[in-house]
Amino acid sequence: MHSLQFTAETTVDGVLERDFTVAGVPGVLWSPASATGRAPLVLMGHGGGTHKRWPAMTGRARLLVHGCGFHVAVVDAPGHGDRPRTPHDEAEIAELYRARAAGEPEGPIVVRYNAHLAERAVPEWHATLDALQALPEIGADGPVGFYGLNMGTAIGVPFVAAEPRITAAVFGLHWPDALAEAARRITVPVEFSLQWDDEHIPRAAGLALFDAFASREKTLHANTGKHKELPRFEADSAVRFFARHLGGTVTPAA
Amino acid sequence: MHSLQFTAETTVDGVLERDFTVAGVPGVLWSPASATGRAPLVLMGHGGGTHKRWPAMTGRARLLVHGCGFHVAVVDAPGHGDRPRTPHDEAEIAELYRARAAGEPEGPIVVRYNAHLAERAVPEWHATLDALQALPEIGADGPVGFYGLNMGTAIGVPFVAAEPRITAAVFGLHWPDALAEAARRITVPVEFSLQWDDEHIPRAAGLALFDAFASREKTLHANTGKHKELPRFEADSAVRFFARHLGGTVTPAA
Repeated sequence: MHSLQFTAETTVDGVLERDFTVAGVPGVLWSPASATGRAPLVLMGHGGGTHKRWPAMTGRARLLVHGCGFHVAVVDAPGHGDRPRTPHDEAEIAELYRARAAGEPEGPIVVRYNAHLAERAVPEWHATLDALQALPEIGADGPVGFYGLNMGTAIGVPFVAAEPRITAAVFGLHWPDALAEAARRITVPVEFSLQWDDEHIPRAAGLALFDAFASREKTLHANTGKHKELPRFEADSAVRFFARHLGGTVTPAA
Repeated sequence: MHSLQFTAETTVDGVLERDFTVAGVPGVLWSPASATGRAPLVLMGHGGGTHKRWPAMTGRARLLVHGCGFHVAVVDAPGHGDRPRTPHDEAEIAELYRARAAGEPEGPIVVRYNAHLAERAVPEWHATLDALQALPEIGADGPVGFYGLNMGTAIGVPFVAAEPRITAAVFGLHWPDALAEAARRITVPVEFSLQWDDEHIPRAAGLALFDAFASREKTLHANTGKHKELPRFEADSAVRFFARHLGGTVTPAA
């Protein structure tokens, strides 16, 4: 097993924030600064073109730590954040920008490039979870959730389908093409967001991915607005979802 | 204007519960027992075959009073609860039971009978709101929400479409046939629930009714399960929705 090395540590406003690496993959672990004993863990996947400290990541991490007392970990996806891009990464990103500038659909490029990144990222997530569970404050038998939208769903769906330690997941904002087959193997509770007026993902495609999950308990949250206009209150909903399924109660923001 | 007569009053667990009538229509008003000053009002419509004190009504009322400090009012729909049935009511209910026993679709009967009830109920709701707003603890210029599923949506959609005093609404679990036209005139924020495996309402029909609302802000909550299996946590979600839109913060249950 690859072990986890902490490389930096700060505490801000009651949240202990530790940079770490596992087998060269850099991540951040947010934890309650005053915690005693073990607490559930939520793994979060960031979106395409962003990284482990993107505001959506730090904001959701703080909601989960403050609201539920959970640990929250994010790692940089391959080719993202502090990690180098391969020539293949560069070519796909250039192709995405070219299509965007030309007004062509982005979907086919995002779907195939994210599927490629998922193949690289899924083994890293298994190893990261192994290493995180070796920490005494997390432990090997506690509940673990996964929370990832956009590219975080493209990586998270195959990861959760293959990872029995994940017991609840929040997904959304992706196409079914490369994910429906893995989604049909997921049976844990799922909360899934899509945007009703998404200019990239056709409505029927988003509904088809939600439909594919085999989970007995799954909830679709569809909101008006375009691809990047997911309402902020969906992050609060995700916190309550994880509180229900990983154990714990939500403490409202002060 | 018809005035409101209180006919009974009890206080249980911090909730003042007052029976009232407006022009012969009986209702219940739940309020914070310790309130001072004015507070927002939520009108709730009950489902078909039930009444103003059905457990779903009393439960949701307590969540809204305890969670937000709001007033909550429910009236018996025509032919329901303490109100007499007309021969037409009796005939339609008999026809519904006959179809159910024969394994025929209930939708066409429910749609047409609920549309008939809405014609009778909408003027009563306008009058009830007039009378409730004459109470000093509610007032004529405070925020007002509407919360009704099933038959509560069949009556609520035409009511809210015609009632500019309603500024936010929770609907769900109905067909679009008789409601889509009125829904297209509703522009206030809407939270809408449907059941993904509803044995009575086809999935596309539920999605079509959600789609019909003209609201800039609307959210669909679709959950796995059959028609009567709406998860309990959707009531908590409705409380937060009204707290966001009518003003107020949610106090978690003790």
